[in-house]
Amino acid sequence: MSVVVVGSVALDSVETPFGKMVDAIGGSATYFSIAGCRFSDINLVGIVGSDFPKLGLELFKSKKINIDGLEIVEGKTFRWGGRYKQNMNERDTIFTELNVFEKFQPKLPDLYKNSDIIFLGNIHPELQLDVLEQMNNKPLVILDTMNLWIELSREKLIEVINKSDVIIINEDEVRQLMGNSDVYKSANKMLNTLNPKILIIKKGKNGAILYHNDKMFILPSYPIDEVIDPTGAGDSFAGGFVAYLDSLNKKNLTFTDYKMAMVNGTIMASFLVESFSIHRLERVTDTEIQNRTKSLIDLISI
Amino acid sequence: MSVVVVGSVALDSVETPFGKMVDAIGGSATYFSIAGCRFSDINLVGIVGSDFPKLGLELFKSKKINIDGLEIVEGKTFRWGGRYKQNMNERDTIFTELNVFEKFQPKLPDLYKNSDIIFLGNIHPELQLDVLEQMNNKPLVILDTMNLWIELSREKLIEVINKSDVIIINEDEVRQLMGNSDVYKSANKMLNTLNPKILIIKKGKNGAILYHNDKMFILPSYPIDEVIDPTGAGDSFAGGFVAYLDSLNKKNLTFTDYKMAMVNGTIMASFLVESFSIHRLERVTDTEIQNRTKSLIDLISI
Repeated sequence: MSVVVVGSVALDSVETPFGKMVDAIGGSATYFSIAGCRFSDINLVGIVGSDFPKLGLELFKSKKINIDGLEIVEGKTFRWGGRYKQNMNERDTIFTELNVFEKFQPKLPDLYKNSDIIFLGNIHPELQLDVLEQMNNKPLVILDTMNLWIELSREKLIEVINKSDVIIINEDEVRQLMGNSDVYKSANKMLNTLNPKILIIKKGKNGAILYHNDKMFILPSYPIDEVIDPTGAGDSFAGGFVAYLDSLNKKNLTFTDYKMAMVNGTIMASFLVESFSIHRLERVTDTEIQNRTKSLIDLISI
Repeated sequence: MSVVVVGSVALDSVETPFGKMVDAIGGSATYFSIAGCRFSDINLVGIVGSDFPKLGLELFKSKKINIDGLEIVEGKTFRWGGRYKQNMNERDTIFTELNVFEKFQPKLPDLYKNSDIIFLGNIHPELQLDVLEQMNNKPLVILDTMNLWIELSREKLIEVINKSDVIIINEDEVRQLMGNSDVYKSANKMLNTLNPKILIIKKGKNGAILYHNDKMFILPSYPIDEVIDPTGAGDSFAGGFVAYLDSLNKKNLTFTDYKMAMVNGTIMASFLVESFSIHRLERVTDTEIQNRTKSLIDLISI
């Protein structure tokens, strides 16, 4: 089994109360892949400029992440700069330089087209639709999005939502999409009007909520004493979540499968936030993952 | 078994995006008692003025809450006024009129002095200590506090913490007390320096955390579509928590007992926030409580 992920591969410059880093490897597809490769085979689709560090490409290869679908073109890589406030809950975007990402036209290598699961990272809904059409079989479609597309491309976004099996969205985004100030009300409105089969609301350090048919599951985040940099937490959650599902190698995924996928996603995000960029996440051992997974299950069990 | 609660009995004026109420029955001891009386016998200690509505006194009696310890003196009842912002997370205090509460010198009726559990609501730490000394036996001491006493009476507060078995504190307060911006770090610092056996951090709509010896339990709040008024949520959580523990009628309470007490506290708070004042909480049926308890356990189970 394998997962296709399409999203950004970027160079991030981030400032938090703990320090500052410049041009570190980031982007939604990167965080997703580095988390997901612990569970399953990842086929990455993205674009970088000729300035993208060799070390980055080697990192993907060393993790056995397939980057046949990562286009390398003349020019500069997508860059994002942000600054977190003291409480780490809010951040300001300092700059966004799309660079080569502006011309991104995802092309799936033939090998990718038979994957069983596809994760549509937070790129333009037009591109997400375009990627979907390139798949041969009918994969499980898992969708992420962001405030920008809710604002600028609402109709297209709803078109992608209609073609997706699982929607992953954060609490601000679901409120924005549904025009309601309450998370639960917004989620219910989304379930009733857009009819996703499975909906996941990410609440950052306050955990995540899963809606599966008529049922709900609420999971807290794993307690971390010192969050160093939350950039990419949502994407590494998605990576752990999706790739864990893929690793089950099942046609009919159950409510419990999705719950356990949330646990695995939560654990991957918990490692991600313990350092800048992917430094901690890429080094975490299988034993550390297993121990923390067991520990989270203990933490929520009566 | 029975529980002594000492705290404020007040008339609250609250404004939320859903409406406004004036001089409704409130105060920490009130919310605690109305929640707790569903599980155990409550002995209330407090003070009100001669203007306190007869209906309020009758309500306590109709719920079999013992108000022998509720002093009624010439003058005006403690009044608090607050206004919630659109997101319901923040509120501004509009006014605080201590009135007769300023002269409050809690006196325990003899019958109360043999209770097994005492809940020290958010009154001045001096008064909390004074009440403790009036108890005959060595009860289980459960302590709540508030930002005001952390600021004005830190040393006395720490003296009460040292005499308490269970500390209930909210996330802002534990950060304030420990001088740290992170909740988990603050909690660990509190556990290491003040050594409470059991510590509960309330996080409002984001649930609560229990520290029991070296173990932790994290519980989300019950999902409520429409929070009408959160005033008293923490006190009704405490009421359900403490009175449930009392109802177990056990000398040695286990980690699981405390977890189930958190579930029961969370459920009582979930009813409280569904209306202004105690209107919903006082009318909730046993079946509704049982169903919601079962439902919360389902929501967190893998």
